Amino acid sequence: MRNVRIEVAYDGSRFYGWQRQDGFESVQEALELALEGLLGEVVTVHGSGRTDTGVHALRQVASFHVDTKLVDDRLRHALNAHLVDGVVVRRLETCDDEFHPRFDAIGKRYLYLTLTTRFRPPFARRYAHWTNQPLDSAAMDHAARGIVGEHDFRAFCSSGSEVKTTVRTVRDLKLVKRRERFAVVVEANGFLYNMVRIIAGTLLDVGRGRLDADCVARALVSGDREELGATAPPDGLYLLRVRYAERPFGGSDRGPQGVPGLFQS
Amino acid sequence: MRNVRIEVAYDGSRFYGWQRQDGFESVQEALELALEGLLGEVVTVHGSGRTDTGVHALRQVASFHVDTKLVDDRLRHALNAHLVDGVVVRRLETCDDEFHPRFDAIGKRYLYLTLTTRFRPPFARRYAHWTNQPLDSAAMDHAARGIVGEHDFRAFCSSGSEVKTTVRTVRDLKLVKRRERFAVVVEANGFLYNMVRIIAGTLLDVGRGRLDADCVARALVSGDREELGATAPPDGLYLLRVRYAERPFGGSDRGPQGVPGLFQS
Repeated sequence: MRNVRIEVAYDGSRFYGWQRQDGFESVQEALELALEGLLGEVVTVHGSGRTDTGVHALRQVASFHVDTKLVDDRLRHALNAHLVDGVVVRRLETCDDEFHPRFDAIGKRYLYLTLTTRFRPPFARRYAHWTNQPLDSAAMDHAARGIVGEHDFRAFCSSGSEVKTTVRTVRDLKLVKRRERFAVVVEANGFLYNMVRIIAGTLLDVGRGRLDADCVARALVSGDREELGATAPPDGLYLLRVRYAERPFGGSDRGPQGVPGLFQS
Repeated sequence: MRNVRIEVAYDGSRFYGWQRQDGFESVQEALELALEGLLGEVVTVHGSGRTDTGVHALRQVASFHVDTKLVDDRLRHALNAHLVDGVVVRRLETCDDEFHPRFDAIGKRYLYLTLTTRFRPPFARRYAHWTNQPLDSAAMDHAARGIVGEHDFRAFCSSGSEVKTTVRTVRDLKLVKRRERFAVVVEANGFLYNMVRIIAGTLLDVGRGRLDADCVARALVSGDREELGATAPPDGLYLLRVRYAERPFGGSDRGPQGVPGLFQS
């Protein structure tokens, strides 16, 4: 048996999230079915964490144990041939037997994409959020700066999640505007449930003038979810990368290639 | 009653083609239902022509007669507010009572988009064709040049269509390559059924070396569909513009904005 680590891109609009659940097509199930079709045995795939229905990934990391003579490149190729449309294994390598994509992760990087075209874009319904209201970048920058650093983010969390601590460190938070595309790129050592979507929704509400730019500072003190903006819809959310102490795949970090329309691939 | 002309963009993957048909959601029906919801009366929308299931449009032209006091801008705004996701009215103006989008059209321009990324792109399944085989541009250029001009295109036509003549004039045919995106842009005074998809499929088969570059010349002489390549799938096809003797909307022709990933919007 060898432990195999993969980087997976998927179209979240096609799946009911990452995690396998009866009666709903998930990314995990798609990978497990492809492996079963290929190898003739039941294989369990472990991901770095769940993504919700509608949330996309460019480089989700997962791993599984298999017993096959196929070398890595062949295994990747065969696995992709068995996979349904909308999910693709970009990289695959045999890794340390102890590697676990969730327990070993030290950070994640997400992108939240909003289009600011005049009309609701007919081709990006499932791949971006949309607003045609003008956005006040200065106010958004001010609010964004308050999020960076180690804080108790309990206000940035949807109820229902059980975690030991709501303290997280946001290492990087960038607002990137290119023509009619507006992206929030955020990296942290970990995220609470819906945290990225609450950050994005809050920054957009600040930009539209629905919230004042100091709401973030107030919410970090009060811990009150009500101080913040709407939870932005899942369509605009992309898991860009999962970080590990040793860089998986060792390769270059060439940025979020493949996000529709925002970055050239 | 006034005659109103519109330019419509739509995501073909969401509809069973342009034309209204019982039990299947069509673009025509979406527009008619929006008008009925807005004005409280049954309105018939006439398009410049049908598009098949899965085929997209950036500037389909249509018209309808309505009796409303709403000025053009208000009417466009209200119509968009009543429309389902995936179809948007980009322009709207009251026009000559005699204008008919189909009978007055003097040409159409289409784009066929192919991605040549290494992996099947998870986010463009419904919006582009994909191949990871190398394409021989010189051979494709040679074949493309043979298509331009006035010819009997009966070989470039799926069976089952009834037309008076299969002679058409292809005014322009461009192959545009930008990074991992390959576009066939073609304009003619009219197209036979599946003609653009047969042109695109043939050029791609020439590019992949499955057909020799002289197949086009042979097919134009023989009229034999078998000389040509596959009918390319609908996902990559975009109706870009419909031409009229008087330029509709008089505005600038700024090119095919909005095609996912190929051209910046």
